[in-house]
Amino acid sequence: MLKILPLGGTGTVTKNMYVYEYLKGGKVIDRLIVDCGIGFPDEEMLGVDLLIPDASYLFGKEKTIRGLFLTHGHDDHIAGLPYILPQLNRNIPIFASKLTAGFAENTLEDFGIKKKIQAIDDNQIINLGNFAIETISVTHSVPDTKHLIIRTPEGILYHGTDFKFDWTPVDGKKPDLQKMAQVGQEGILCLLTDCLRVEKDGYSLSESSLRDGLVREARGVKGKLIVTTMSSNIHRIQQAVDVAAEFGRKTVFIGRSVEQNVRVAERLGFLRLPKNMIIAKKQAKKLPPQKTCLIVAGSQGQIDSSLARMSKNEYLLAQIRPGDKVVFAADPIPGNEKAVYQVIDNFIKLGASVSYHDIYDDLHVSGHASAGELSLFLTLLKPRYVMPIGATFRQMSHFRDIAKPLGFDKKDFFLLEEGQFLEVERGQAKKGEKIKLKTIIVDGLGIGDVGKIILAERRKMANNGMAIAIIPVSEKSGRVVGQPEIITRGFVFVRDAQELLADAGRLVGTIAPQGTKITNWKEAKEKIVTQLTQLFFTETQREPLVLAMMVKIN
Amino acid sequence: MLKILPLGGTGTVTKNMYVYEYLKGGKVIDRLIVDCGIGFPDEEMLGVDLLIPDASYLFGKEKTIRGLFLTHGHDDHIAGLPYILPQLNRNIPIFASKLTAGFAENTLEDFGIKKKIQAIDDNQIINLGNFAIETISVTHSVPDTKHLIIRTPEGILYHGTDFKFDWTPVDGKKPDLQKMAQVGQEGILCLLTDCLRVEKDGYSLSESSLRDGLVREARGVKGKLIVTTMSSNIHRIQQAVDVAAEFGRKTVFIGRSVEQNVRVAERLGFLRLPKNMIIAKKQAKKLPPQKTCLIVAGSQGQIDSSLARMSKNEYLLAQIRPGDKVVFAADPIPGNEKAVYQVIDNFIKLGASVSYHDIYDDLHVSGHASAGELSLFLTLLKPRYVMPIGATFRQMSHFRDIAKPLGFDKKDFFLLEEGQFLEVERGQAKKGEKIKLKTIIVDGLGIGDVGKIILAERRKMANNGMAIAIIPVSEKSGRVVGQPEIITRGFVFVRDAQELLADAGRLVGTIAPQGTKITNWKEAKEKIVTQLTQLFFTETQREPLVLAMMVKIN
Repeated sequence: MLKILPLGGTGTVTKNMYVYEYLKGGKVIDRLIVDCGIGFPDEEMLGVDLLIPDASYLFGKEKTIRGLFLTHGHDDHIAGLPYILPQLNRNIPIFASKLTAGFAENTLEDFGIKKKIQAIDDNQIINLGNFAIETISVTHSVPDTKHLIIRTPEGILYHGTDFKFDWTPVDGKKPDLQKMAQVGQEGILCLLTDCLRVEKDGYSLSESSLRDGLVREARGVKGKLIVTTMSSNIHRIQQAVDVAAEFGRKTVFIGRSVEQNVRVAERLGFLRLPKNMIIAKKQAKKLPPQKTCLIVAGSQGQIDSSLARMSKNEYLLAQIRPGDKVVFAADPIPGNEKAVYQVIDNFIKLGASVSYHDIYDDLHVSGHASAGELSLFLTLLKPRYVMPIGATFRQMSHFRDIAKPLGFDKKDFFLLEEGQFLEVERGQAKKGEKIKLKTIIVDGLGIGDVGKIILAERRKMANNGMAIAIIPVSEKSGRVVGQPEIITRGFVFVRDAQELLADAGRLVGTIAPQGTKITNWKEAKEKIVTQLTQLFFTETQREPLVLAMMVKIN
Repeated sequence: MLKILPLGGTGTVTKNMYVYEYLKGGKVIDRLIVDCGIGFPDEEMLGVDLLIPDASYLFGKEKTIRGLFLTHGHDDHIAGLPYILPQLNRNIPIFASKLTAGFAENTLEDFGIKKKIQAIDDNQIINLGNFAIETISVTHSVPDTKHLIIRTPEGILYHGTDFKFDWTPVDGKKPDLQKMAQVGQEGILCLLTDCLRVEKDGYSLSESSLRDGLVREARGVKGKLIVTTMSSNIHRIQQAVDVAAEFGRKTVFIGRSVEQNVRVAERLGFLRLPKNMIIAKKQAKKLPPQKTCLIVAGSQGQIDSSLARMSKNEYLLAQIRPGDKVVFAADPIPGNEKAVYQVIDNFIKLGASVSYHDIYDDLHVSGHASAGELSLFLTLLKPRYVMPIGATFRQMSHFRDIAKPLGFDKKDFFLLEEGQFLEVERGQAKKGEKIKLKTIIVDGLGIGDVGKIILAERRKMANNGMAIAIIPVSEKSGRVVGQPEIITRGFVFVRDAQELLADAGRLVGTIAPQGTKITNWKEAKEKIVTQLTQLFFTETQREPLVLAMMVKIN
């Protein structure tokens, strides 16, 4: 019997992590983990850095974990490792393609974790207990992305991570249709597959189609040529460097993520930098602007990115001047639009010309398969069951809809929530039990300590600030020994709100009058909070976080 | 001499408000205001309800204000009235087209302000001092939108508010090209014009092109048909009602804004509701679902909207069931994507089928002119000068770029920031002085009291919560008379942070030890705040708002 458990990645797109289990006599004897990514907080999770999958289900089961496979080098597939690996067992063997291994080792190193990841290629078969895993080359917005064929005594599983069918990839490494056809012919019991872009009809464009747009952008630019894209998109960076070189521009890489990824990709042979056409940051200023191309991190408008700083001329090594051109070779991810527009507006105000998605639609292509490609994929693989992954519920549901005319029945599709098991036995799949998963928040150094209560407090303070009533109480006598103090922040403009705050002080004074001994402090506190909240709402229509605190004095 | 002053609407899209001034002998003798809209807070303005233009420049100048024109019924053009009119003078005559007047009166009434707005039509000339104003019909996403021809002794100004060229508008009232051609022939000195959609090539589609999509959506729906759109888009509502009626469905309007706008539009003859095909909310439940169409407010995923509540089955009069269909006949406005997607996902989880922008591109058309229409507009009007309005800086700048091949020089275009005067004298325009405008925030009942400091406090508390150190001090002796108390909210999970908070308490105790008399409290407070901030950052990598408060006891 087989079990498949998504710990992340179904319904939330990011924080991808999947557990495959092989059972014998009702007992799990082998476990295989695929991917270990981070997630991104939604707008309600104020101040949160990132999310990681809740791996607590695996705690204590380390002995059965035969290995961990990483499918590709995006953060939502690998960047959970530094958090989760130490929670499990640092000695779990990890496998990945060459570039993915390079990126993942780098990610671990950033956290001081030295760990060799086993780089494998498509010719190898990795035997892990009852699982025999083979990789299969596909194309995506990061090179060296792999699908996994997972052979088990119960049948073949196919882990179809993020991909598209690019017939003319920049590095010439095409998706391995032949191997797909072959494993489809063998018979796939269950296909897990990316369907993030299923809402788009037809076929996604080839990454190499960007070249023409980049050439158009580079032509006739009088000043610096500045290109920004996702820093893991090595092929786009390759094309930008090549186009720059054709126009006699030397390239400089700016921004931690771009610099780091370029270094790894070049070392491993995934990026070919033209000789003498790459310069260091400090050299760039010495060249005439029309001889330089800056590839800069921050295409999503990230507030601390090099690009955002450059757009405000706060980046000292490259001052923006009229004649410079900024090319956004990446669409904003939904939710990032305002930040991206802010950066664009900043650049234009400095006199730079900016090319971006609203004006040109040929400066970005998606790395995910559209509906046409997914139809091809299903037709090629002929899986018995399909489990959509890496997408929201609406996308998984739409995928099921478009698979109907291809001959897939509604009950062949399993739309699983995170924590929901899929059980496969004797060729039949069915939903199993559902375990409760926590939203594990990383905030600063804290992993998992920020929960619902803290977020609710932050939300309340974000919207209306806070107000605290402080009541001094004698430790010995238990009596109120002073006037209550009302402190507010983020609520009202204190200078203009003297009257309101005096009213608030008086109100607290009537509930906890000076000199009296309050016998039930809990009750008094609740009364103060309720009545202050009411007073503030009536007077301002705002609802700050209200606290009542007793300070003991000797 | 003429002066034009944007108080809002240039660079920020919303909170449109423009002042036209006519001067004689260096003195302004007549002022005309066009529009008075609200703006929307950006993501950094936590908890803010809305923004209004800073009209303080006009305070004390009421006697010269001859009148106020409203161009169309969108909130970013009219909804500032209830805030700003009382600040100026309630007796200023206000003019608008019939529907715009109806919407504006309604908006004022919501704030208890009874004010008759003078409904005018295109045949009238309104003389206000040295200004003679005529309206000119255009098409937009709200009916009865008007451009203004403003004749002055210095020349003709053309106020081209939000519009597009719709040759087949739903109500048959086409843009008045003839009148445009005629005034262009007379000679326009300065054209102020919408250019929000200039980044799109070609021509925007007609509103009536939506019909086919709505018919496709209505066909074969087994349950309720639910349509959501912008509540001021009366023509889209008209089409939804008509299509529903054709399919034998009776329509019910749900949501305050939709109900209110429908009421006004119907009363004034801008919406023709088919007889016996409109039902009240309570009746809807009695009809079989396949006989009903619900037109519901909340197309932007607004958290408190009827649609959002319906998507969680919290709306009691209409429970969502499999077979129901929800049609989003409105694209998300940038920034609202996540909220809209949340609502879509909710509906799909309840088993409803949902049609939205990622799947169909024929369920929404823009109300703004694309680049092709703007080229036509410039060619027809032949203005001497152009001042783009109602758009961001990048759009105004792009408009200037595309006007170049039409024969407009860079110096014919004035890209003004809010508060920047344009001066026109003897046929020549030039930038004038720039006045400083405040960002006026409406938050609850407060207008303008929430400023930079409060917002900065909210932001800090939103990201990392707050921590307060409270030190009890004797009023008489001035000595510290108790242990410091550390209170936090939204910062750390208190139960797990005992050690950190104890450390913090000890730290405060060393700076303000019990029994000692602190001579310089300001210095002591600063020291406490600095050192606590440092301690917290080292231990958690978080930066809460840190306060030190002394509580006096007798």
